[in-house]
Amino acid sequence: MIKAGIIGSTGYAGQELVRLLLGHKDAEIVWYGSRSYIDKKYAEVYQNMFELVDAKCLDDNMQELADKADVIFTATPQGLCASLVSEEILSKVKIIDLSADFRIKDVKIYEEWYKIEHKSPEFIQEAVYGLCEINREDIKKARLVANPGCYTTCSILTCYPLVKEGLIDPDTIIIDAKSGTSGAGRGAKLDNLFCEVNENMKAYGVATHRHTPEIEEQLGYAAGREIRLNFTPHLVPMNRGILATAYASLTRDVSYEEVKAVYDAYYGKEKFIRVLEKDVCPQTKWVEGSNYVDVNFKIDPRTGRIIMMGALDNLVKGAAGQAVQNMNLMFGEKESEGLELVPMFP
Amino acid sequence: MIKAGIIGSTGYAGQELVRLLLGHKDAEIVWYGSRSYIDKKYAEVYQNMFELVDAKCLDDNMQELADKADVIFTATPQGLCASLVSEEILSKVKIIDLSADFRIKDVKIYEEWYKIEHKSPEFIQEAVYGLCEINREDIKKARLVANPGCYTTCSILTCYPLVKEGLIDPDTIIIDAKSGTSGAGRGAKLDNLFCEVNENMKAYGVATHRHTPEIEEQLGYAAGREIRLNFTPHLVPMNRGILATAYASLTRDVSYEEVKAVYDAYYGKEKFIRVLEKDVCPQTKWVEGSNYVDVNFKIDPRTGRIIMMGALDNLVKGAAGQAVQNMNLMFGEKESEGLELVPMFP
Amino acid sequence: MIKAGIIGSTGYAGQELVRLLLGHKDAEIVWYGSRSYIDKKYAEVYQNMFELVDAKCLDDNMQELADKADVIFTATPQGLCASLVSEEILSKVKIIDLSADFRIKDVKIYEEWYKIEHKSPEFIQEAVYGLCEINREDIKKARLVANPGCYTTCSILTCYPLVKEGLIDPDTIIIDAKSGTSGAGRGAKLDNLFCEVNENMKAYGVATHRHTPEIEEQLGYAAGREIRLNFTPHLVPMNRGILATAYASLTRDVSYEEVKAVYDAYYGKEKFIRVLEKDVCPQTKWVEGSNYVDVNFKIDPRTGRIIMMGALDNLVKGAAGQAVQNMNLMFGEKESEGLELVPMFP
Amino acid sequence: MIKAGIIGSTGYAGQELVRLLLGHKDAEIVWYGSRSYIDKKYAEVYQNMFELVDAKCLDDNMQELADKADVIFTATPQGLCASLVSEEILSKVKIIDLSADFRIKDVKIYEEWYKIEHKSPEFIQEAVYGLCEINREDIKKARLVANPGCYTTCSILTCYPLVKEGLIDPDTIIIDAKSGTSGAGRGAKLDNLFCEVNENMKAYGVATHRHTPEIEEQLGYAAGREIRLNFTPHLVPMNRGILATAYASLTRDVSYEEVKAVYDAYYGKEKFIRVLEKDVCPQTKWVEGSNYVDVNFKIDPRTGRIIMMGALDNLVKGAAGQAVQNMNLMFGEKESEGLELVPMFP
Repeated sequence: MIKAGIIGSTGYAGQELVRLLLGHKDAEIVWYGSRSYIDKKYAEVYQNMFELVDAKCLDDNMQELADKADVIFTATPQGLCASLVSEEILSKVKIIDLSADFRIKDVKIYEEWYKIEHKSPEFIQEAVYGLCEINREDIKKARLVANPGCYTTCSILTCYPLVKEGLIDPDTIIIDAKSGTSGAGRGAKLDNLFCEVNENMKAYGVATHRHTPEIEEQLGYAAGREIRLNFTPHLVPMNRGILATAYASLTRDVSYEEVKAVYDAYYGKEKFIRVLEKDVCPQTKWVEGSNYVDVNFKIDPRTGRIIMMGALDNLVKGAAGQAVQNMNLMFGEKESEGLELVPMFP
Repeated sequence: MIKAGIIGSTGYAGQELVRLLLGHKDAEIVWYGSRSYIDKKYAEVYQNMFELVDAKCLDDNMQELADKADVIFTATPQGLCASLVSEEILSKVKIIDLSADFRIKDVKIYEEWYKIEHKSPEFIQEAVYGLCEINREDIKKARLVANPGCYTTCSILTCYPLVKEGLIDPDTIIIDAKSGTSGAGRGAKLDNLFCEVNENMKAYGVATHRHTPEIEEQLGYAAGREIRLNFTPHLVPMNRGILATAYASLTRDVSYEEVKAVYDAYYGKEKFIRVLEKDVCPQTKWVEGSNYVDVNFKIDPRTGRIIMMGALDNLVKGAAGQAVQNMNLMFGEKESEGLELVPMFP
Repeated sequence: MIKAGIIGSTGYAGQELVRLLLGHKDAEIVWYGSRSYIDKKYAEVYQNMFELVDAKCLDDNMQELADKADVIFTATPQGLCASLVSEEILSKVKIIDLSADFRIKDVKIYEEWYKIEHKSPEFIQEAVYGLCEINREDIKKARLVANPGCYTTCSILTCYPLVKEGLIDPDTIIIDAKSGTSGAGRGAKLDNLFCEVNENMKAYGVATHRHTPEIEEQLGYAAGREIRLNFTPHLVPMNRGILATAYASLTRDVSYEEVKAVYDAYYGKEKFIRVLEKDVCPQTKWVEGSNYVDVNFKIDPRTGRIIMMGALDNLVKGAAGQAVQNMNLMFGEKESEGLELVPMFP
Repeated sequence: MIKAGIIGSTGYAGQELVRLLLGHKDAEIVWYGSRSYIDKKYAEVYQNMFELVDAKCLDDNMQELADKADVIFTATPQGLCASLVSEEILSKVKIIDLSADFRIKDVKIYEEWYKIEHKSPEFIQEAVYGLCEINREDIKKARLVANPGCYTTCSILTCYPLVKEGLIDPDTIIIDAKSGTSGAGRGAKLDNLFCEVNENMKAYGVATHRHTPEIEEQLGYAAGREIRLNFTPHLVPMNRGILATAYASLTRDVSYEEVKAVYDAYYGKEKFIRVLEKDVCPQTKWVEGSNYVDVNFKIDPRTGRIIMMGALDNLVKGAAGQAVQNMNLMFGEKESEGLELVPMFP
């Protein structure tokens, strides 16, 4: 039985971790960390957990937690994990960090985009970027996994095969992404009030969103060189779901069948990536509550571009689900354990 | 392995049955019936099932199905199950009918409220009303189970203990119920279009809704006599969820503790009924995707009335979940098998 | 030209006042009060007003405002208006208070339900309850109008004719009301976040909501005696709209035509109250953005009860629209000036 | 008084025309055309119009209508207007066609994208493309106006100044557009059911949507040559609103101030186009119910691209509002008559 501690268990991603781990046959949660709700019953913070979770919330004591747990999930604001981690802790416990602290290899880029000082740059090289379908073997051996961002998981997986195969010019990539509101977290902010979000749509963080360098770094590895692309997130009046619509110029004439074969070569055996059939556009609702990413594409011969589309549940494959998938890899569990969830519709 | 056939598998309730049975370790679906989509791949009708269900939709052939299956779920419009069932079929296969055909013991009341002739009244007496927490022992022995309606499950479970114990006058019961739109089915009707439902709320079927006599009959059994009550359903702009707010006059002065003790006596050991803590009002979101019913109450000493509240997911405990729970009881399975779903939030 | 000042202009009701007054041909806004946003451009707080309102937000200085304005709207939390009003101010300016401070004649009831001390009980008797269709003549002469609550306007107008005519027993009235989320205000509270409200429904303030004594007082005047009733509000995932479903026992056998005639006698000439045709249930969407209240009823001969239904837009007839209607009456304007808004659908 | 007839008055755009014309001081509706609801009271089809519209729906008799009306609005499916118009009719009455029949000058492109034969190509040259801010003077003299599409109005106005001034390379334009569901019309289709749209997001018509050639033609005029671009529409769970996010490569280094000056030069005096302040992203809610288009932009020096954004209400500026604006221009009315609507928030 894997003993799991969660720091930041009362955010939406933390709570989703609880939901998933409750259904995992080889894991148990030993620590419900939440600085905001110390000593409060977890099920009073999330009433859906009534009679399912009996524990109270605890403070963020990573030292103590390292002794009690086999794995720590940090579902916390940027900077916290980097400020707590140490060699001593990593010698005792594996860490899966859902924040951005260890996602970007170049600490200067991290500090520039996140506007904070990195408190433990010495662990950046060791950390494995936890995009399971791309870095599976490295994850198995990792002590510290940087769980990818929600937008980035969707964006990278949508474009990866075509970048890797050189079918698109990576510097022409434009990713227009749309997200449900749970991605904004559970903080009580005016912008996230029901009446401000409902019946409304907007772009935000235009040309400045922090997931941009993360996508560029990972797709850059696929391209074999540094790349620059545009990424624009939008807020949509729904709870869950990310849809990425990505555009790029094709490097040569290709047929539907050729591109489909490329996607199938990369994803055909991947349980959690579904390449849809011809002309079926991904919809966020078809993956809701599950760990799937649905991807597809459409060639536009008029403009020589290809439109690539991907959809996932930002709290599952975009956060907690991928974190559990990483845990499974790190502990030699069946990769899909606890994640065999059928998407819920409607 | 229980072989299950579904007639009406492409409605919302039918699809939810598929979702639940895919997660049931001792059941497999052998027949995806759908008169509207014969020969079409099921996963093309419900793309969330892509790569999860490979089968095609089949016609509603109950004769053939009776030979292939151990249990048939009929998730069909009123009248269909009654027109298909026969002694020969019931001798081969168990039936769980999600329609109203066998819910009401008095065939005249059925025909009056549903405006159709009942085609097999000879099975009405045999049929067991499948409200698991009330009729558990009878269900275990049944060949034919009438799966309760969504509104009725919520309404009956919310009021049952106080009616049974005589703490409220059953003729003063007023149930004001609110439902998400999936309860209206997947038919392409103008009234159910997004733009007609979103940002809107209305009552419908006022004083005439067909779930009224079903609630009256069942609560009448609890009261030990015939009763008459008011039931008003409302359509709410959300996909899933029913909330019942029920009002009744108390028959005597009672304290919070007394009433709480009554609810606990009836439901304290029930896995799927959660009696919430004092002053916590049920919310539909806290049970979404799960088989739970959350109930609570508030005494109003000013008026001598009690307000009882219940919330469930209309597609799970209100339809497919309860149907699986009935199947488990009928086949000697663990009652919660396939139903240990943590509510999804947000 | 009526010079209007608004204290609390950056709440949802305050902003709706701005929207309506911008379309009023004889009124201009001279003061955009907002303690939270002093010196900030109003159109930066509400970008829908960009290029429409050039003013900055000002502090809540009622003394200064009394010199500049002909009418002051206070769209503020309970207690503020009562703490600011004085004989000197009322000698200079008319006040329309959108808070509850002057709605309830018995100060003890006010203090009991609102848990605050009333700072100017001397003006309670003078204040006129601004339910235009009931108290029109008194409003015309008033200096201080207590603008009714959103739930109360809907509830009272729905039941009023039948209480007044003695067709229902007022002590049997149960009002089950449902409201969009704008009624909860623009405060940044966790409970009002999009993800907490969307796809969710709940009752709140059960047996304790502050609009209860207000409804009881007003319907008590119609009944000619004190009454006690149940009122339960619910939060619905939509921005605007209140639907009240009210139940009461009939005092005698009545026909549809009799009851319809009673409603028509009271409301037939009222521009803003629409008695719908037989069997048409009010829907909130049909009045959205307008000052209308749609009402209708259904007799249930089985139980001897009648179900009365009413729908309005909580920010218009339930707040700012009725406030403007009151202003029009107080200043001898055409009652519907600035309020001839066609409901927006969808 | 302008006598207006509406063919297709019971679609969402037709109904919005009714809403707007009811508030127009110099127009009256003399014909509520609706083939689907002949002889039914208009207010029974749209209950928001109860007591506001007393008329019944009439058949689509353009001959008779031409004698009774000064202007005919055709809010009908593609092909209908082209099949009804004639020289005789145009000699009697002005026509504003909300369908696509006369938007595209090259009849072959129309027939290719719309898959129907054009029944009156002889009027295509005469028809004026009714984008008021661009073609104002021609509209004033027109007999036949082709009212632009909703996506196209938003897309063109968002990009127009920079194309016209040569600041962007028009062949690099990628428009990623998001629309509320009212754009899909009031037809009872499964895809537009509440439960299919709510909590969901998808692209559709990828690389094949019919608004593509319309945008290309109009921006081609601005560019002075033929252009090819990508346009991808998405369906969003909201009733109203279109948001266009457009990307293009800059042709040279430009500063924020330069680009702002270009937008201001084109739109500074336009009542219905609001160029927002620096870093304020357009939101659909800020224009809901009004005739405004909000536009803004962000330069991305990293990629040499500019992101242009525009938001409008698809039923107002994207359909009925622009149609009324066109009518005002054609009849010498004040351009904003009937359209001075403050956006409704929330």
